[in-house]
Amino acid sequence: MSQYDSVRAVEWCDNHLVLLDQRKLPQTEKYIQLFNAPDIAEAINNMVVRGAPAIGITAAYAMVLAARKAFNQYPQDWRVRLLSDYDVLLASRPTAVNLKWALQLMIQKIDRVDEQNDPIGQLLEYARSIHRDDIEANYRMGHLGSALIKPAHGVITHCNTGSLATGGYGTALGVIRSAFAGQRIEQVYADETRPWWQGSRLTAWELIKDNIPVKLMCDGAAGHLMQQGRVAWVIVGSDRIAANGDVANKIGTYSLAINARYHHIGFMVVAPTSTIDMDTPTGADIPIEERSPAYNPAFDVTPAKLVSALVTEKGVVLKPDAKKIADLMAT
Amino acid sequence: MSQYDSVRAVEWCDNHLVLLDQRKLPQTEKYIQLFNAPDIAEAINNMVVRGAPAIGITAAYAMVLAARKAFNQYPQDWRVRLLSDYDVLLASRPTAVNLKWALQLMIQKIDRVDEQNDPIGQLLEYARSIHRDDIEANYRMGHLGSALIKPAHGVITHCNTGSLATGGYGTALGVIRSAFAGQRIEQVYADETRPWWQGSRLTAWELIKDNIPVKLMCDGAAGHLMQQGRVAWVIVGSDRIAANGDVANKIGTYSLAINARYHHIGFMVVAPTSTIDMDTPTGADIPIEERSPAYNPAFDVTPAKLVSALVTEKGVVLKPDAKKIADLMAT
Repeated sequence: MSQYDSVRAVEWCDNHLVLLDQRKLPQTEKYIQLFNAPDIAEAINNMVVRGAPAIGITAAYAMVLAARKAFNQYPQDWRVRLLSDYDVLLASRPTAVNLKWALQLMIQKIDRVDEQNDPIGQLLEYARSIHRDDIEANYRMGHLGSALIKPAHGVITHCNTGSLATGGYGTALGVIRSAFAGQRIEQVYADETRPWWQGSRLTAWELIKDNIPVKLMCDGAAGHLMQQGRVAWVIVGSDRIAANGDVANKIGTYSLAINARYHHIGFMVVAPTSTIDMDTPTGADIPIEERSPAYNPAFDVTPAKLVSALVTEKGVVLKPDAKKIADLMAT
Repeated sequence: MSQYDSVRAVEWCDNHLVLLDQRKLPQTEKYIQLFNAPDIAEAINNMVVRGAPAIGITAAYAMVLAARKAFNQYPQDWRVRLLSDYDVLLASRPTAVNLKWALQLMIQKIDRVDEQNDPIGQLLEYARSIHRDDIEANYRMGHLGSALIKPAHGVITHCNTGSLATGGYGTALGVIRSAFAGQRIEQVYADETRPWWQGSRLTAWELIKDNIPVKLMCDGAAGHLMQQGRVAWVIVGSDRIAANGDVANKIGTYSLAINARYHHIGFMVVAPTSTIDMDTPTGADIPIEERSPAYNPAFDVTPAKLVSALVTEKGVVLKPDAKKIADLMAT
C-alpha cells in the first residue's frame, strides 16, 4: 500500500472475512467479522458492502467459507453440498454483474481443485488472486489515467469509486490517488452525489483518511467551479459501458460531462474492461430505472462523444467510439 | 386569485400582519400574527419569511405598524419616534436589497402623508399598493413568459420563486402558473436545490397546494431529463442581473443553463426590472460567497449568451445583451 492508499473495505484475516460496515460511515468506522457464507450473503444484501468489484471479491471469499464448511462436514460430496450457499450468495444482490462473475470463477476453480492437497488452501489462494488482480488493475489504471493529467489545480469526481467500492485503491479514485501522489493535482472536489450521498458519506471519508485534500460540493456547483478555472479534469467510474463507448453511471454524470465539454475540460472514465458490455450496442439500449412521484432515475448515460479518455487496465482509449472499443476488447 | 394561485406568504388582516412560517414547511402550515415592527424584524431575521420581494412587502407593512404605535403614543413627533423601529427593520437582513428599497419608500410616504386625514390609513393603503404592484408585475411577467412557451410536456425550475418568495403568484413560478393555466405545459420538474432544499421544501409544496403537477428531482438529474426529450424550457428567477444580461442566481442555475444550451432547450429568466443592476457591468463584477471546508458557493452567474429570454414586467428581452438591457431600462 502506498502512502495514499490505506483504506480496505474487504479483507481476509486468518480464517474469516472482515468487512467495513459502509452503512455506518462516516460517523463510525466499524468492522464486521464473518465466518460463513449465509452471513456474508446477508451483509451483501444489507449493503454492509457496496460497489460492484467489492461485492464480487466478497462473494469469492464467501465461497471459500462455504467450501470449508462443506468439506469438513461432507468430505465425500462437498462440491454438491456447497451449492445451497452458492444460491444464497447469488440471490443476495440480483443486479450485480460482478457478483455472478466472481461466483462462477469460484465454482470453476472448485471443479478442478486438487482434493488431496489442501483444497481449501487452494481456493483461498484463488480468491486472494481475484482480489489481488482487482487491486492491480486499479494500480495500472491509476498509472495510465494519472499520466493524462498535466499538473493542475483540481479535479471533480462523482459518486464513490474508491477503495470502498473495489478490492482497494479504486478506479476513478485510483487515478486521483496516483495523480495526487505524483503531484499532478492539489485538490479534489467531490460531488455530494444525491440522492444517496455516496460523495458525502464515502468519498470524502476515504480521501480524508488518506490525507488527500477534498472539498465536498453540491452536485449543482460543478459548472460554477469550472467557470472559476479551478478544474482540469472530471474523473468518474462507470456501471456499464456500451460497445460504442456510451457510459452509464450514477445520475448526475451526464450533466457533469456536458459542463466539462462546455468549459473545454477533460472528461475521464476509469473502468476495467469487465465493465464494457459488447452486447450493448449503444447507451440507448441501457434501461434506466425511474420511481414516482419524484423523478428519481438512478443512473444516466453519457454519450461517447463527451468522453475525452476511457482508462482501462488494458490501456487508454482517447475519444472512444465503437471501432476503438472493439480494438481494445480484441487485444 | 386564479385557480392556480392560492398561496400567500404575507397578508394584512384587519389590524395586523400575518406571515406563513416558511421554516416549518412542508410539514406544517402555520401562520403567525404580528402586531408590531420589532416582532416582524425578528421574523425576517429568523427566516419566517424569505425571498427578496416578500421581505420588502413584509417590511412595508411593518412600517405601518411602527407608524401607528408612534402616532398613538407621540402624536407630536411620531415621525422621529418611529425611526428606531426603522433601524431595527433595516438591520434584520443586511443583504436584502428589496428590504431597504421598501423601507425607503415608506419613509418617503411618511414624510408627505396628510396628518389631518387618517395618516395611518394612508400608509396602510400605500403598503398595500406596494404589495399589489408586486403581484401585478408577476401577473404581467406570467402572461409575457407563458406566451413564449409552445404547448409542450414539461419545464424545469430551480429554487423557489413563487408565491412564497414574492407578494404572490411568483416570478418564474408565475410564468409556470400562467403556462399551466393556459395548457401550455403538463408537468413541472422542480430541482430539489441543494444545499437548502428550496425546491423540496417550498416549490413542491406550493405547486401541490395549487394542483399543478410537480415532480421533484435531484439537481444532477436535469441533463438526463432533457436527454429524454421531456423538457421545453428551463425557467428560473434571479437575485441580480448585470447590465450586460449576466444572471446571478441560486447555485446550480449555471449548470442548468449549460445543459439547456447543449440540448437546444430555451432558458428563461423571469425577474422584475428592480433586479437589474445597471451599476454592475457584467457577472464578473458580482461577488460570490464561499465557505470552507466544503466548496459551498451560494450563487452562480449564468452568462447572458446562455439566456434565451429575459422576462420582466416591462417586457421580454430575447437573447439579452448590454444594448438590449439598456434599451429596456430606458423605456
